[in-house]
Amino acid sequence: MISEKMVSYVQGSSAIRAMFEEGKRLSAIYGAENVYDFSLGNPNLPAPKEVKEAVYRILEEEDSVFVHGYMSNSGYEDVRGAVAESLNRRFGTAFHGENIVMTVGAAGGMNVIMKTLLNPGEEVVVFAPYFGEYRAYVTNYDGVLVTVPPNTEDFQPDLAEFEKRITPKTKAVIVNTPNNPTGVIYSEDTIKSLAALMRKKQQEYGTSIYLISDEPYRELAYDGKEAPYLTKYYENTIVGYSFSKSLSLPGERIGYLVLPDELDDSEDVRAAANVATRILGYVNAPSLFQRVIARCLEAQVDVEYYDRNRKTLYEGLKNVGLDCMKPQGAFYLFVKSPLEDEKEFCAAAKRHNILLVPGSSFDCPGYVRLAYCVSYEMICRSLPHFAELMKEIGGGKKK
Amino acid sequence: MISEKMVSYVQGSSAIRAMFEEGKRLSAIYGAENVYDFSLGNPNLPAPKEVKEAVYRILEEEDSVFVHGYMSNSGYEDVRGAVAESLNRRFGTAFHGENIVMTVGAAGGMNVIMKTLLNPGEEVVVFAPYFGEYRAYVTNYDGVLVTVPPNTEDFQPDLAEFEKRITPKTKAVIVNTPNNPTGVIYSEDTIKSLAALMRKKQQEYGTSIYLISDEPYRELAYDGKEAPYLTKYYENTIVGYSFSKSLSLPGERIGYLVLPDELDDSEDVRAAANVATRILGYVNAPSLFQRVIARCLEAQVDVEYYDRNRKTLYEGLKNVGLDCMKPQGAFYLFVKSPLEDEKEFCAAAKRHNILLVPGSSFDCPGYVRLAYCVSYEMICRSLPHFAELMKEIGGGKKK
Repeated sequence: MISEKMVSYVQGSSAIRAMFEEGKRLSAIYGAENVYDFSLGNPNLPAPKEVKEAVYRILEEEDSVFVHGYMSNSGYEDVRGAVAESLNRRFGTAFHGENIVMTVGAAGGMNVIMKTLLNPGEEVVVFAPYFGEYRAYVTNYDGVLVTVPPNTEDFQPDLAEFEKRITPKTKAVIVNTPNNPTGVIYSEDTIKSLAALMRKKQQEYGTSIYLISDEPYRELAYDGKEAPYLTKYYENTIVGYSFSKSLSLPGERIGYLVLPDELDDSEDVRAAANVATRILGYVNAPSLFQRVIARCLEAQVDVEYYDRNRKTLYEGLKNVGLDCMKPQGAFYLFVKSPLEDEKEFCAAAKRHNILLVPGSSFDCPGYVRLAYCVSYEMICRSLPHFAELMKEIGGGKKK
Repeated sequence: MISEKMVSYVQGSSAIRAMFEEGKRLSAIYGAENVYDFSLGNPNLPAPKEVKEAVYRILEEEDSVFVHGYMSNSGYEDVRGAVAESLNRRFGTAFHGENIVMTVGAAGGMNVIMKTLLNPGEEVVVFAPYFGEYRAYVTNYDGVLVTVPPNTEDFQPDLAEFEKRITPKTKAVIVNTPNNPTGVIYSEDTIKSLAALMRKKQQEYGTSIYLISDEPYRELAYDGKEAPYLTKYYENTIVGYSFSKSLSLPGERIGYLVLPDELDDSEDVRAAANVATRILGYVNAPSLFQRVIARCLEAQVDVEYYDRNRKTLYEGLKNVGLDCMKPQGAFYLFVKSPLEDEKEFCAAAKRHNILLVPGSSFDCPGYVRLAYCVSYEMICRSLPHFAELMKEIGGGKKK
């Protein structure tokens, strides 16, 4: 009796659920410390101490009706202003509070902006490999997801393939940098070329093509790298942000959209995003945590911890003969499968109590994703098992 | 460039925005204490002290990664179990944790269940007057809203008119009791007749028709009344609840759906609601406040305060010659407009700095809604101005 559209979503979801159950099953048999679960992007670091301090201060200093009450669907004015100022300070932008819409995490923000922009049949372009939920976010509003095949050289977007896929129906392009699942940061050169191409196509078709930058991993960048701030490169840029990773608050559902003045029809887009927030049933981003993040805009989790994990896992996998690029950001490693069918490799890994996500979940078969937002000790314990795994499949068909 | 569907929503929203701005404008001219704003359903009472205590205890006792982290999309298992037990204790039901899906408020829950159930073109029946957002919640998923005209005798649903509107395409019926905007509680007789009728129609058409009980006002019932718990009267009942009013936490976006075992295809509905929560971008109900409400299931705001407001405003309006039923629940009075066009009456009221919502916003013209979740003092101060208003329109066309 459920919606027909939901039937396939539920089936797809069962696969993820099955993996989760498998982790629990293995833990029950072998003990949790002997299972090496790299499948979940759930931050393992505690929120920085500033978060707890902010909660305490807010509950002491501010009025209950205000802190837990309704506000504009787009969020508290002072919070939106504080976010804008923080961005301006960090990136040399010139946002004001009205450019910010507080959202129920980045996923909420992505749904709000799709609801705001898409007419049925309009196209949204993504670059493989990409976060699989984008497909739902687009089809929820009867949009069409158009995928650009992966550039497996360096996992920067393949702009030649991109150009072929921009049509008069292209309404938006989603980029995610630092990237899930590859850990790649799109270079400034990439961004400039992408922007030039989109500008050219806008002119050619007389349309507006919005660039949507989904950046929950912005703060997780290593070796002194930083992801370019995209509103500075292309006028029709919308940014989606989340505090899930930077403050380890994924369950609290707190993030924001940036809707700059420079957008085509900026006022309409902002007014519609405000209404979409309400009618999609979010109503507003959770109120206490809006006020919390406004007091924690300079705080962040211990990125050094993830960095140590990154180096240890990367070196460890290289040493056992696995092939992958050193990630520049986020907390994922995207590893070339030593077996042609990466699902077979995942199955082999499971026999060594190692849980991986197949690249086909990101529209990029032949690879597997490892999330290293796990304990350092687990990574160290896992490495001998990767060695055994590689020994086992040594006779397997090499790619 | 925004979605065409959004254009009309934005226009509709501008009217509400205009009223809000009007309140601010009047306050600036006459002083906030001389403006009588009955337009907003924003609770004015602080959250009970148990809420703050719960936040402190959770942050002291529980692990940050757990409290602020991801959990199942349907919510923490222990929280879902606690909600089920509390319902069983209070209403003699037999729910277990798996029957509960934690949601981003009742509005989030309503969207999740519409996404879960509706195929394009399927019909959802509502009884006028009804909360205007239901239209968006249904059309978001390409459903068709079917409205039953109001029974202005006593604002119980008009079941004869209802019966005419049930078709083979009827997928769900929404009831909201205690009701916004009338304050009426649907009687047990009403519920029994409604259930019998729906059962008959299910059999006649060989379909499943879900009864969706949206009950954010359940705890706000006066004179010892209680709204019947609908799962006990009709097998295919889904309950949507919110802690926005009972704990004065509207900004925190915390509520739940009850999906009983007795539902047709109950397991499918639950699995799909779990996935809908994720793909609509909620991902999960805010984590800290899930844990908070689990510790506050027996707490509630000072309902006596609203009750005093109710009696004072009801008596005051009757004394100046306005015609309305004494509300049994929620925090609204639905008043017959003394002018045939209730929008004219709202405009006249505004000249006395009184802000009301026209009944046409609830698909019930000829009436106006007053929200009495305001300060008692404001109600007292407003009454002489209602008297003046009635004197002014004394020559107006009586209905």
